[in-house]
Amino acid sequence: MANAVAKKIALLTGGGDCPGLNPAIRGAVLQAQAYGWECVGMLDGWKGMIEGNCRPLSAADVEEIVGKGGTMLGTSRTNPYKKEGGQQKVMETFKKLKLDALIAMGGEDTLGVANKLHKDFKANVVGVPKTMDNDLSATDYTFGFDTSATVAVDAVERLRDTGRSHKRIMVLEVMGRHAGWVALFTGIAGGADYVCLPERPVDVKDMTAKLKAAHKRKGVAVVVASEAVEIPGEKKDEKLDEFGHMILKDRGVAERLTEIIEKETGIETRSAVIGHIQRGGPPTLFDRMLGTRVGMKAAQLVSDGKFGQMAALKGDAVVGVPLQEAVGALKTVNKEWLTLLDTLLGATSGAPAKETAGAR
Amino acid sequence: MANAVAKKIALLTGGGDCPGLNPAIRGAVLQAQAYGWECVGMLDGWKGMIEGNCRPLSAADVEEIVGKGGTMLGTSRTNPYKKEGGQQKVMETFKKLKLDALIAMGGEDTLGVANKLHKDFKANVVGVPKTMDNDLSATDYTFGFDTSATVAVDAVERLRDTGRSHKRIMVLEVMGRHAGWVALFTGIAGGADYVCLPERPVDVKDMTAKLKAAHKRKGVAVVVASEAVEIPGEKKDEKLDEFGHMILKDRGVAERLTEIIEKETGIETRSAVIGHIQRGGPPTLFDRMLGTRVGMKAAQLVSDGKFGQMAALKGDAVVGVPLQEAVGALKTVNKEWLTLLDTLLGATSGAPAKETAGAR
Amino acid sequence: MANAVAKKIALLTGGGDCPGLNPAIRGAVLQAQAYGWECVGMLDGWKGMIEGNCRPLSAADVEEIVGKGGTMLGTSRTNPYKKEGGQQKVMETFKKLKLDALIAMGGEDTLGVANKLHKDFKANVVGVPKTMDNDLSATDYTFGFDTSATVAVDAVERLRDTGRSHKRIMVLEVMGRHAGWVALFTGIAGGADYVCLPERPVDVKDMTAKLKAAHKRKGVAVVVASEAVEIPGEKKDEKLDEFGHMILKDRGVAERLTEIIEKETGIETRSAVIGHIQRGGPPTLFDRMLGTRVGMKAAQLVSDGKFGQMAALKGDAVVGVPLQEAVGALKTVNKEWLTLLDTLLGATSGAPAKETAGAR
Amino acid sequence: MANAVAKKIALLTGGGDCPGLNPAIRGAVLQAQAYGWECVGMLDGWKGMIEGNCRPLSAADVEEIVGKGGTMLGTSRTNPYKKEGGQQKVMETFKKLKLDALIAMGGEDTLGVANKLHKDFKANVVGVPKTMDNDLSATDYTFGFDTSATVAVDAVERLRDTGRSHKRIMVLEVMGRHAGWVALFTGIAGGADYVCLPERPVDVKDMTAKLKAAHKRKGVAVVVASEAVEIPGEKKDEKLDEFGHMILKDRGVAERLTEIIEKETGIETRSAVIGHIQRGGPPTLFDRMLGTRVGMKAAQLVSDGKFGQMAALKGDAVVGVPLQEAVGALKTVNKEWLTLLDTLLGATSGAPAKETAGAR
Repeated sequence: MANAVAKKIALLTGGGDCPGLNPAIRGAVLQAQAYGWECVGMLDGWKGMIEGNCRPLSAADVEEIVGKGGTMLGTSRTNPYKKEGGQQKVMETFKKLKLDALIAMGGEDTLGVANKLHKDFKANVVGVPKTMDNDLSATDYTFGFDTSATVAVDAVERLRDTGRSHKRIMVLEVMGRHAGWVALFTGIAGGADYVCLPERPVDVKDMTAKLKAAHKRKGVAVVVASEAVEIPGEKKDEKLDEFGHMILKDRGVAERLTEIIEKETGIETRSAVIGHIQRGGPPTLFDRMLGTRVGMKAAQLVSDGKFGQMAALKGDAVVGVPLQEAVGALKTVNKEWLTLLDTLLGATSGAPAKETAGAR
Repeated sequence: MANAVAKKIALLTGGGDCPGLNPAIRGAVLQAQAYGWECVGMLDGWKGMIEGNCRPLSAADVEEIVGKGGTMLGTSRTNPYKKEGGQQKVMETFKKLKLDALIAMGGEDTLGVANKLHKDFKANVVGVPKTMDNDLSATDYTFGFDTSATVAVDAVERLRDTGRSHKRIMVLEVMGRHAGWVALFTGIAGGADYVCLPERPVDVKDMTAKLKAAHKRKGVAVVVASEAVEIPGEKKDEKLDEFGHMILKDRGVAERLTEIIEKETGIETRSAVIGHIQRGGPPTLFDRMLGTRVGMKAAQLVSDGKFGQMAALKGDAVVGVPLQEAVGALKTVNKEWLTLLDTLLGATSGAPAKETAGAR
Repeated sequence: MANAVAKKIALLTGGGDCPGLNPAIRGAVLQAQAYGWECVGMLDGWKGMIEGNCRPLSAADVEEIVGKGGTMLGTSRTNPYKKEGGQQKVMETFKKLKLDALIAMGGEDTLGVANKLHKDFKANVVGVPKTMDNDLSATDYTFGFDTSATVAVDAVERLRDTGRSHKRIMVLEVMGRHAGWVALFTGIAGGADYVCLPERPVDVKDMTAKLKAAHKRKGVAVVVASEAVEIPGEKKDEKLDEFGHMILKDRGVAERLTEIIEKETGIETRSAVIGHIQRGGPPTLFDRMLGTRVGMKAAQLVSDGKFGQMAALKGDAVVGVPLQEAVGALKTVNKEWLTLLDTLLGATSGAPAKETAGAR
Repeated sequence: MANAVAKKIALLTGGGDCPGLNPAIRGAVLQAQAYGWECVGMLDGWKGMIEGNCRPLSAADVEEIVGKGGTMLGTSRTNPYKKEGGQQKVMETFKKLKLDALIAMGGEDTLGVANKLHKDFKANVVGVPKTMDNDLSATDYTFGFDTSATVAVDAVERLRDTGRSHKRIMVLEVMGRHAGWVALFTGIAGGADYVCLPERPVDVKDMTAKLKAAHKRKGVAVVVASEAVEIPGEKKDEKLDEFGHMILKDRGVAERLTEIIEKETGIETRSAVIGHIQRGGPPTLFDRMLGTRVGMKAAQLVSDGKFGQMAALKGDAVVGVPLQEAVGALKTVNKEWLTLLDTLLGATSGAPAKETAGAR
């Protein structure tokens, strides 16, 4: 696997952080070392490339980070194409540091920059996809998602405990502005009684009917909702503050759903918003393995000269795909998954209320 | 340990639920069975006593609940003294079910009712103290608190991961309306850089100075704040909505602190509110042991005829103390703990910013 | 999705239990209910089919089991083909209970029986693959594996903590008699310094060289080993008991590796065997999702009349494949994975011992 | 709290490591910094004092270790009094490094050395008690114990899952050579059906009767046993190897109990040994708080000139007690706890086998 010519490559992590970035850094660096290459880590995403800010990255630097959340290289939302002359500065750093290639790890925005640099300057860039929301096209899964949904399932189970004791309906708001993958997986794996996704408007009548049935059966019901769902029946101007002005607009999904559910069902309802708690912590096994594999693959793409590509999970394999594919349309929850969800929710809700012997 | 006369006793859990109630129920029932007594569980707190709603409780019913969150008996905030003739109905149920004694598990409110029933009717009631906030007098610790702070420490660590990647200050709002125990323990055990307690107004200048120093040293800083801290410097009427009306009043502590910190330090700041997620989940070892012990002790108090008392942790022992002691003044964070906290925060913050070799 | 003809189907779980069986039972039952079918659960695997021992399974029975380890139906290693007239009794139960189909969940052995019944009697059987060891062919992953390796990674991290404090080499023996998947994933995701697999003899010289290098760099080294690895250099008759008889034969891999490593490296070495602890506990997100999907798919295969098939994960999809494919050759760790492992281990070990600034 | 005279103090951690040492180091260093003192960390226990091997310890070095297992200073079992001239070398290091005081953290052995040094040389030594086994006198609890038993409870719950699926009896062997605290707390908090302690011989007849009853009720039973229990009925010479020699002597408690239980009950029985897995991992909240408090108290004892003392938990307070008290008799499980255990086990086992509605 040794490579004829020693190379010097740089790594960076951009956009919102998520668990799995450190395993990916480790994977890329260890594969690079196996090739006999030198690695440097650019600090704080594209900002580091603009400013030429970096640190050395040896195998010893990364061998103990596989279980750590966040990214050891730091990150930022800096986009060189949105800064005066940013892309030129990136290319100057490329030259000044005598880089043979750059591995850019990030989501749509970070990979979009990588793609443009490759197109505009024929820059030797490869990508590693990352998004907690799992909404990136061209890859089956992205690391960060499994950890994030795992944390949310734990929250569902805690909320159910307290909800059952008080005979309440509980609402959990999870991340996912454009795609409902986190809510979907959290709802299914957490055994939620209803799941609200940004992919379709909330059917308030269906939701309240199912929650009432579940509450009647179990004395508790749980809803998982993405942070940006649309609620058609919501009369935004209905609630006014003491001065006669509506104050609904700034409230989150959890609060709005809670109000609607409580009103429609007559059952006490409480909510929680998981927020940033979902972003950190040790990556799960799945995210450690996926991070390691795509990180290693990125170095292999460099070795093969496949620039303008990113490492993607396709079935059981990690392969190279054009960056262009990843930065196109968002991957949202598709019809098959919606059908699966509705089958699970419908079947449970349809069950007659009865005495059950209880699973052991 | 067998008791000459077989007894019939009832158990109930009232007020907000918390992890440890199930171990306490198990402890009381198993001790009662050892005495040869019969147990019934009143459903949903005092509501069950008012309505005479109950279920049998055998050893087999409780032997697998020690690891489960919530309460298998349900709970409510019903207070018989606030319902027309409520206390009389409670005493009628006592008579109708032929109860020899009642074990009431709950916080200040639930135990207050127990105390009054004992005084007003010489009712054979003993108490088991419970509060997630640890603010009950007459006992060193209450179950629920250890689990609750454990969940919050996990949140601190997750927030620190993402905060460090983005070089942010992170604020975690935890439960504790009147006493800051949860924030105190979460802050110390989570290694927070500042802790805001309801026991004293936030010293904004001290806070921002320490956060800036910590952020300079580590590239991240974390604040843990009780849900009800007082912020003296806060100009509540400063921020107006588009119609010229102030909209600050309804925002939580996390949001308000975040705004202040960001403004004063110039460092990007984000927050999370743990809320109800903190109430559920499997009890920790500490809460399982404490719940078991106070539950057993309550049955022993019944056996000894020590009505009007509750089971309390005093040092290493679980003893009976008058209910009256528990329902008096709230136990807030005392001077010794404040000094300890300030020593920890001061010492860290005072450290000069420098390159550290890093703990292994 | 409703089905013209109402059906009655049975479910069973056979062989060694693992996390994910309950989600699979839930998935199958909820899909069946969506079809309007009746479900029964056969108790304790094929034993229940031989003896006609069963329980009803409604949606309400399964709606709270998705987070529970083990199997609510019980399991056994009973194989009807190894009992006098066993297969006939199974078919009689089929007839007596008026079953339209049977969903058999299990590993090679359980699915082998299902396959034979389908061939011998044209029995309406479909399968759900399950194995903690991930060694079943015809499916990318089986549930149970992710949870099992997750528990083992946690053990690796605990062992590393104590190993580092004492400057020891630590050995963890994990499950996997014929295939090394658990050791492979545990080793990679746990950041182990060496991994011993049943797929190839241990290269003692390579192992001790890498462990010495890792121990020199970090003051600790960790080995993950499958329970049944071959150690070529091992002189089995070398160690004799006090009576002059060799006592090596019954010792496990952990103990044998520890002795060899300590002798060859001169570094204090300790070991642990995770054993049955690895089999239980709440399934991970991955196993909950996979279990749910293959359970639902099994019911869909019944609906489509695709008997003799099982639900398999192929890439991102769950599809039907002939049972015959699953019960053929074992799926062992392939060359691609071995190369990946060696790249990771080689790269780290090759790094020069040096002062590192420490990953943040 | 500032101290008139600046001091230089050293810290060391000796004996077997356990979770809580890092919080204790942090507590001591932060308190020392509040006093304006300089700290150094001696490496690898008394070995570091003998060889004069140390590292600086600033507040910045310790501020991120509160959640980490093990000890950042390393440890060893080196005892200066068992090395030729060891104690003199320790005192020379004391002088050479111009130490004003030494904080020694460890168990009976480490604290015994500290006590002797104080007696023999009037050395300015204070102690911090540490033992995973909780068997140290003169303190209510030692850190490490809560984490250790927490890990064991998790193992109990995993074993119960798999045991129930297979209708087996499961045996878990935990640490505790001389005192049964870990087994006691693990058994109670894990809801075990029997607990074997080193404090009294196993009553095989009682054990098998209770296990059979529990297995009949629940389809599973779990035993927790200390690593060194005495089994009176065991016929050690019964089992011979192929050469006619007995091979029982080296087997662990888990294996021996399993054989006995299986033979006496006729129920399939399996076991697991948790071993070193129990020693590592992030300390629990309890151990972080206790570690922090005793670490800080140790620095306060130095400030007060109370040498020859150690920081001990007494009730709710952390106080100074003579080292002499700690290194006397071992603290074993007392009569009160044995009665409590027997009440729990007896009551459950005495319950009639019956259909239970199941706790929700």
